[in-house]
Amino acid sequence: MPQAAGSDEPRRSAKWTARRDVIIDTSARAFARGGYHGTGITELCAANGLGKGALYHYIGSKEELLAAIHDRVMDEVMLGADRVAEAGGPPSGQLAMLGDELLDVIHRYPDHVWVFLHEFPALTGVRAEQFRLRRRSYERRVEAILQAGIDTGEFRDVDARLTALAWLGMHNYTYLWLKAGGPVSARDVAKPFADIFIRGIANATAHGSE
Amino acid sequence: MPQAAGSDEPRRSAKWTARRDVIIDTSARAFARGGYHGTGITELCAANGLGKGALYHYIGSKEELLAAIHDRVMDEVMLGADRVAEAGGPPSGQLAMLGDELLDVIHRYPDHVWVFLHEFPALTGVRAEQFRLRRRSYERRVEAILQAGIDTGEFRDVDARLTALAWLGMHNYTYLWLKAGGPVSARDVAKPFADIFIRGIANATAHGSE
Repeated sequence: MPQAAGSDEPRRSAKWTARRDVIIDTSARAFARGGYHGTGITELCAANGLGKGALYHYIGSKEELLAAIHDRVMDEVMLGADRVAEAGGPPSGQLAMLGDELLDVIHRYPDHVWVFLHEFPALTGVRAEQFRLRRRSYERRVEAILQAGIDTGEFRDVDARLTALAWLGMHNYTYLWLKAGGPVSARDVAKPFADIFIRGIANATAHGSE
Repeated sequence: MPQAAGSDEPRRSAKWTARRDVIIDTSARAFARGGYHGTGITELCAANGLGKGALYHYIGSKEELLAAIHDRVMDEVMLGADRVAEAGGPPSGQLAMLGDELLDVIHRYPDHVWVFLHEFPALTGVRAEQFRLRRRSYERRVEAILQAGIDTGEFRDVDARLTALAWLGMHNYTYLWLKAGGPVSARDVAKPFADIFIRGIANATAHGSE
């Protein structure tokens, strides 16, 4: 059945969507192991136990699959950022909560994060632009919390953009060692990371030593 | 001529070594663009303007080339860590200098860093082990400086391993946006990063507020 014109999200059954999510997750694992360029449609079919026709029915194209892997993680990351914004409170608390939310996603989706952090240059055209915009939108959330803290005097007068990049690096880079089922939980890492970062940008003049 | 037994480094002419370095750098650029798995010997020959025989004469194998790209960066990173150890002084100063040295290398070798951070799972056997050991050896330098600061009371009683991973993430992750010839220099980034990190782990009890 043709899709309604102007609809980004074709109406699909819950079963179709659930099946597609499984395919995205399985393919993320395949890409994480063999690389995006090194994993062909044949390998993706084998990993998913599907023929080419069935695979294309769910994913459209290999590049669309790569974009879907990214969206699956970014959807959760942005939901986390929404929860933080809704919770409100002092910027230091918001930054700690944002770190908690981000590490939780990285911890649950190590293959997806690996794939989209490594393979995003393979995205082209509109998909590359959407990827860039969604990442930028998340970075802006981090910067906004930092700027709010600078404005209220809770944080010292740091460069919000550069400080956001420092924060993102510290948290994102955990995808290399923070593994689901590993000895360290996301919370075990989020708490000391927040301690370092928030002390690092705290306005000592306003708050004195601890 | 056969190599002397027991020698890791065959005696080669300076000209051979210089030529090999150029091949390593050119190939790093090729891998950064096309991925390690997606870039075959044919593409490497074309990028370097060499026939297969000549290329193999310099690099041995594609995997050896990947290891050489890593070594070229790690040699410089370790030299930087040696300079820091030689300079000595308080742990906070050493940590700032180590960040300065690391960002300088990342800034000068963005393609190499991209390739080895993304493609290291392609290393096998002895090369994978050497890669692991060299990285671990650098991590130990970071941990040692942190531990020294904890021992002298300059830093608070943080987990040295986890804190080293936080520091490494914050610095290593710059490879995604800190580009040679870009608007921001390595020093522009190293200084505010050191400020955040060192304040973040400073022992407020011993040093009071600023």
